[in-house]
Amino acid sequence: MACDEGPLIVGGAEVKRRAASYCYRLGISSDVEPISPVYGHQRSRRSSSPLPLVREELKPHEILDQGVESFGYDFVQNSVFIEELMKNGTIGKRYSIEVIRHVVLFLIGFCTALAASLIDYLIEVISELKYRTVSSLIVRFESGWLFSIPGFAWCGINVFLTGLAAVLVAFLAPIAAGSGIPQVKCYLNGLNLPRLMRCLTMVVKGAGLVFAVSGGLAVGKEGPMIHIGSVIAAGISQGRITFCNWSLRFLRFFRNDPQKRDFVGAGAAAGVAAAFGAPVGGLLFTLEEGASFVYQRLTWTILFASMVSMFVLALIKTVVHTRTFSFTPGGLVSFGTFTFLDSYSIYEILMFLVMGVFGGVCGAVFVKINALLTQYRQKFVTSKYAKVLEAMLVSFLTTSIGYSFMWLIRDCSPLAFTTNPHPLRLMCADNEFNSMSSLLFNTPERSLRTLFHEPPGTFSVSSLVVFFVVYYFVACITYGLSVSSGLFIPALLIGASWGRVIGIWMNSSYPESFPHPGKFALIGAAAQLGGIVRMTLSLTVILMESTGSVLVGLPLLMTLTVAKYVGDFLSEGIYDEHIGLSSLALLPWEPDPLSSTKRAHDIMCSPVVFLSPCMRVGDLIRKVESNPHHGFPIVEGPVDPARFSYGTLIGTISTEHLGILLKHRIFLKEDGTPAKSLTFDEYDSAYPSYAKLKDVLSQLTEEDMEATLDLQPYMCEAPYSVPEVTLTFAFFPVDNCFCPFA
Amino acid sequence: MACDEGPLIVGGAEVKRRAASYCYRLGISSDVEPISPVYGHQRSRRSSSPLPLVREELKPHEILDQGVESFGYDFVQNSVFIEELMKNGTIGKRYSIEVIRHVVLFLIGFCTALAASLIDYLIEVISELKYRTVSSLIVRFESGWLFSIPGFAWCGINVFLTGLAAVLVAFLAPIAAGSGIPQVKCYLNGLNLPRLMRCLTMVVKGAGLVFAVSGGLAVGKEGPMIHIGSVIAAGISQGRITFCNWSLRFLRFFRNDPQKRDFVGAGAAAGVAAAFGAPVGGLLFTLEEGASFVYQRLTWTILFASMVSMFVLALIKTVVHTRTFSFTPGGLVSFGTFTFLDSYSIYEILMFLVMGVFGGVCGAVFVKINALLTQYRQKFVTSKYAKVLEAMLVSFLTTSIGYSFMWLIRDCSPLAFTTNPHPLRLMCADNEFNSMSSLLFNTPERSLRTLFHEPPGTFSVSSLVVFFVVYYFVACITYGLSVSSGLFIPALLIGASWGRVIGIWMNSSYPESFPHPGKFALIGAAAQLGGIVRMTLSLTVILMESTGSVLVGLPLLMTLTVAKYVGDFLSEGIYDEHIGLSSLALLPWEPDPLSSTKRAHDIMCSPVVFLSPCMRVGDLIRKVESNPHHGFPIVEGPVDPARFSYGTLIGTISTEHLGILLKHRIFLKEDGTPAKSLTFDEYDSAYPSYAKLKDVLSQLTEEDMEATLDLQPYMCEAPYSVPEVTLTFAFFPVDNCFCPFA
Repeated sequence: MACDEGPLIVGGAEVKRRAASYCYRLGISSDVEPISPVYGHQRSRRSSSPLPLVREELKPHEILDQGVESFGYDFVQNSVFIEELMKNGTIGKRYSIEVIRHVVLFLIGFCTALAASLIDYLIEVISELKYRTVSSLIVRFESGWLFSIPGFAWCGINVFLTGLAAVLVAFLAPIAAGSGIPQVKCYLNGLNLPRLMRCLTMVVKGAGLVFAVSGGLAVGKEGPMIHIGSVIAAGISQGRITFCNWSLRFLRFFRNDPQKRDFVGAGAAAGVAAAFGAPVGGLLFTLEEGASFVYQRLTWTILFASMVSMFVLALIKTVVHTRTFSFTPGGLVSFGTFTFLDSYSIYEILMFLVMGVFGGVCGAVFVKINALLTQYRQKFVTSKYAKVLEAMLVSFLTTSIGYSFMWLIRDCSPLAFTTNPHPLRLMCADNEFNSMSSLLFNTPERSLRTLFHEPPGTFSVSSLVVFFVVYYFVACITYGLSVSSGLFIPALLIGASWGRVIGIWMNSSYPESFPHPGKFALIGAAAQLGGIVRMTLSLTVILMESTGSVLVGLPLLMTLTVAKYVGDFLSEGIYDEHIGLSSLALLPWEPDPLSSTKRAHDIMCSPVVFLSPCMRVGDLIRKVESNPHHGFPIVEGPVDPARFSYGTLIGTISTEHLGILLKHRIFLKEDGTPAKSLTFDEYDSAYPSYAKLKDVLSQLTEEDMEATLDLQPYMCEAPYSVPEVTLTFAFFPVDNCFCPFA
Repeated sequence: MACDEGPLIVGGAEVKRRAASYCYRLGISSDVEPISPVYGHQRSRRSSSPLPLVREELKPHEILDQGVESFGYDFVQNSVFIEELMKNGTIGKRYSIEVIRHVVLFLIGFCTALAASLIDYLIEVISELKYRTVSSLIVRFESGWLFSIPGFAWCGINVFLTGLAAVLVAFLAPIAAGSGIPQVKCYLNGLNLPRLMRCLTMVVKGAGLVFAVSGGLAVGKEGPMIHIGSVIAAGISQGRITFCNWSLRFLRFFRNDPQKRDFVGAGAAAGVAAAFGAPVGGLLFTLEEGASFVYQRLTWTILFASMVSMFVLALIKTVVHTRTFSFTPGGLVSFGTFTFLDSYSIYEILMFLVMGVFGGVCGAVFVKINALLTQYRQKFVTSKYAKVLEAMLVSFLTTSIGYSFMWLIRDCSPLAFTTNPHPLRLMCADNEFNSMSSLLFNTPERSLRTLFHEPPGTFSVSSLVVFFVVYYFVACITYGLSVSSGLFIPALLIGASWGRVIGIWMNSSYPESFPHPGKFALIGAAAQLGGIVRMTLSLTVILMESTGSVLVGLPLLMTLTVAKYVGDFLSEGIYDEHIGLSSLALLPWEPDPLSSTKRAHDIMCSPVVFLSPCMRVGDLIRKVESNPHHGFPIVEGPVDPARFSYGTLIGTISTEHLGILLKHRIFLKEDGTPAKSLTFDEYDSAYPSYAKLKDVLSQLTEEDMEATLDLQPYMCEAPYSVPEVTLTFAFFPVDNCFCPFA
């Protein structure tokens, strides 16, 4: 869908906005009018890659070469699809479709919870084994000059596990690297990223996650759950195994882009629900970050899946741990009960806002550093082996720094304070433990709960500040490695550490008003996370559901809002930054201000490339090959621009559908009647892995080239169109569409 | 916009779907094809008024006579509006618009909270005075044969207050009757109901609410808060006082239908936030019940207003009651802290689902009875005096039944159990109180908390059952009276009473597993409310936020879902039922199954009524007068259907804009140049109370009739169009639009 060459025509509102987004991003318009300085200015202020740079670096063909196309958003109204629609249009059929939909949604939630439980269980087992081994080594070598041996053992285990994680991702599924949230966001936004929803990607993501988290990297398992949930949804809803050519007939109603995308949204929400025990948060995550169309059934669909996911996960957790059927709602990570969160003074709220500012600044700096690192990686760390080595190096650094700081910082607290299963004594007294160890020698989730809940005297300010600085840079280096890695928990940990420092200060200044520093740790965690990812509404609800208390909602929302605004002033959010660095054209929610001066004829191409209702195959192929568009308008009647005669637009057809027609040789016989017709099953079996046009063309014979193709029964006979004077955007989201026909 | 006569053309997606909804509802199509039996069957199974009935009873003109038109959804792209758009298109201007928007949103939240506090305070004061007076009378006359005197006094006070409430509504603003939720729902759905957003309506609603609630009717103050919030939003965002011709210039950007509707949505959410202390619930309420377009800025807009509203209300409450600035988040009604809600057994969940079924059935019966009553009222209680008398009669009934049952049912509990400020002893021992009195002789909110929290032995099963039956019918009679009345609290009370009965049974059977019946009371309340209003997602979050505990979310959601499905099987929700009874065409979320067989040419009219770009005023007026449409297509070129020549669609114009043109006499001079042009200010000052076409026409002279009007500069030059073969709906919400031009 390159807009400098093709008409902006196919599909509905979304495609149009996407097309315009492409054009503006690339600085291209048909009459080669340069993008106005206003737009360039705005981009350069907010993004690390200002427009002129993007313009030189990216050619539309590069985007096409990546194989990233837009999803379809509309019902293809041709005779075959209409016939199928009529079949499913009866009440009974529709009810049964709804029943199937709910079964599919249930399975999505169920499997997501199962996957989450399995991952959680494996991480628990491996981590427990690791910490037990290392802590017994520490106890043995603690007092001698061999005290560094446990450190080497710990490093060795971690580097090995991280190496495994990196090998899996680098060699089997590079798209499984990172949290997957930017990719899922793009997918829901309408970009069909290749290999994102494959089963292999999910398996690599899951296994890589187990090794990365238990390998002691500064990563969380929550973000990747969103990706895993999405893949599960894409898989179950399509009910098809491509390589053994098996597919469920009664799921064919769901095998089209809009339906699939809705299920993927539900899967993402189910992932959030499983990770944080936050079904409503999951719903809002999908709505805020992903879905471009929101309608009531979608909302319900998403909520149902995420509810099932959370329910099943909570039940599995309870049955495994307590062998009873009595469960407490919750997810993989739980922040524990905050007993001290009931009322707020107005001064406290002001303090929270200040923390929001700090979190925003801190988060923006994090994003900037990480973006620079990513650019560096894109240039220099390109081979698979280098990626694995880099991950192992970072793992070594993380572990050795952690081990050193445990010895260097002597911050002892009474043993009674801790809930850590492996408290290390190190250089402390007999009934004490090293509180640095409960931060560094622990799974990230447990460290987080420690910061939220351990009593006031547990940590000294200096050890928290050291932890903050170290973890900040370690987390920053880690995100972007070639391993599955979530960013939520590390960001929360960073924020909780500086938040708790503020809490300790407040506590020592006004011990009566602020009996526990945990409240500030929570707000700090939220501020930091908000400053990095820039979500407000969904993050509020997710954190609210994770703490189990509604009363934290208001202060959380205020802090997150401030953190977002402050952060946005300094940089983009980390997901958007990474999307930008991968040159993906995410469609923004708001139209660009420049668009108010642009009309359809400014960005459409001329002369328009079009097809005729009946064409010789050879002519068709020449036209399609020289214009690599995603779809073509079909025009009837005399076209002669010199005489202002543009014919009549009678339909559109996508390149994929042209490919199906050519592959099945739906040509006209010599008497003008079709030799055979396409059936819905042929369309269905081609979805979504359409044969490449190149491959189809190579199979055509010389004789085929002379045949005639009647496009009329297979074109979408009801394209939308607007006059060419239409403004490309108005102030508010308008749902319209382009047609360059006056 | 009558679809049997006019073209279905003006505007975007919404208007199209609305038009089709009209047609299907009325059973009208241009070629007089009867609605298929499938559709009729579906309607009659679900609605009390099957289609054939609706068809005979309603004529499109009746709907037009009500003056209900659809809102505009799109930017009117004509030269005047484009010029204004360019002015506001610069970055600086856009930022200042955003700042103004946030100030407006803050004010909406602030004023809604203020209004809610004032109403709450007045109700508290009047109720306290009333209960103190009556309880002192009861103490004086308790033991003699004059025990009925306090009853008469109580009745007198209540009847007087209710009478006041009814007089206000019946004589000043009949649209302020009821909760206002159905009307706000229609408004957000896109129906421009007259007088709904007037200041007078709000004042009457507020004052009527104070009198109705303190008058002891079975009504809550929460539903009407949503309407009040909406009116506040509509007022503040428009910044205009019509009768003194004063308007704020810098708010003119917000004076158009889409912007105003977004603000009204935010106001409705602010109302929910103030009523229940539920900002996220308020957001979801607006999304679930109202807004048809959802986009990120709208979400944020709504949340910001509702957050401010809840914050200000909580602060005002705290400052008034405790004189400190330390506040607990919360709204007008709070369900108190449920300490016993932490974990659930799988059996309990099953029990909750059964309760959901009961709630659904109970709710559907409630809706049915209420619908019959409403039909009866529409026929027989038509005069204003009758309405006032009816309200007073119901008030008398409510109070006298309440007083009798307090004497008839001797259910005594230890005084230590109650938190009721006026516990009545009646026939109980010295250190006991009559527990029936804490239900009936109390504000509904306090009765509700009593049912949720008082210890297990407080109420006997028999008194709860009696209360349930009585309150069920009283609430059913009350909703639909000519007073401001919310349904949430009565419904919750009904459900809490039967829920608590179940809780008592469970408690007596398994005292260890179920120590407190309050959990079941909460679930029962949710099930009953869900069975009546049929909200799921937003209601879950609202109730979750009101209880302050996230852990109730999952069981609440399950119960509400079951209640909704069971209820939907038996009847429509009460709001939809009332909307149907008022013959308003609410646009459903899902397309009708029948629509999959309908194409644009099936429901469009032929021949199409259209205007020419340049017309003699007399011809224009004749055409407009004989076709009372909301808008007209403008067609250029030769039109001769016999030769299949339909001209070219070049634009559209709405009747309101035609009115402005005629009013300002924008005619051409004799040399063909315009005598004067319209400015944006003239459009702005006409919005939204457009002059009636009739009035404009009466001012035109004979000479004017001969003048020529050039519509081209003022028409919307970019209407959407689709071929006439377009299917009216597809499986999923499609955003398209009609044009009957091939």
